[in-house]
Amino acid sequence: MVKYSDQALDRTFAALADPTRRALLARLGKRDSLSVSELAQPFSMSLPAIMKHLDVLSDAGLVARAKTGRVVACRLTAAPMEQAMEWLNRYQRFWSDNLDRLAAFVEEDS
Amino acid sequence: MVKYSDQALDRTFAALADPTRRALLARLGKRDSLSVSELAQPFSMSLPAIMKHLDVLSDAGLVARAKTGRVVACRLTAAPMEQAMEWLNRYQRFWSDNLDRLAAFVEEDS
Repeated sequence: MVKYSDQALDRTFAALADPTRRALLARLGKRDSLSVSELAQPFSMSLPAIMKHLDVLSDAGLVARAKTGRVVACRLTAAPMEQAMEWLNRYQRFWSDNLDRLAAFVEEDS
Repeated sequence: MVKYSDQALDRTFAALADPTRRALLARLGKRDSLSVSELAQPFSMSLPAIMKHLDVLSDAGLVARAKTGRVVACRLTAAPMEQAMEWLNRYQRFWSDNLDRLAAFVEEDS
């Protein structure tokens, strides 16, 4: 099994910690690829601001960009999400834990 | 189904975007609860620095703290991770996608 670095997880989680970036990924999840201007279209945000978000997503490996003439096409590259999910998956048993135990713990606070 | 706010996801992903915070959660995942000093013990970091990380985790709802006398006990509260996982889960089909298609897309770059 491939050992994924802490830095990759840092970048993935940080990239996902923004609603605009998650919305960009959601848009890319619905299409095979989109140009930067098509991607930016529904957002009430300047194109440079969108491009900065795309830079963060691209640095995290979540978006691939390919230039054809003057058009930059963007595509979702979800592989880093798998590593994030694998990390989260280890905690699955905790969120199905009995909430009563937690309530009892918090009630100890006096 | 409960509708989780963007802000909650922002906080969860941002809290997870740091290797020390992920390591703190991993330590809490192994024990029912740990005092702050027990938690801090293996880290080459000051106690105030660890406590700042715990604040971030607590703000994100990932750690619960309960004070008994002078001892603050910490406990993993993994529920926000479930929401993060649900978000990521929607993209699962993309990371099992044929990588050749992506390679072809990137090669269009000229």
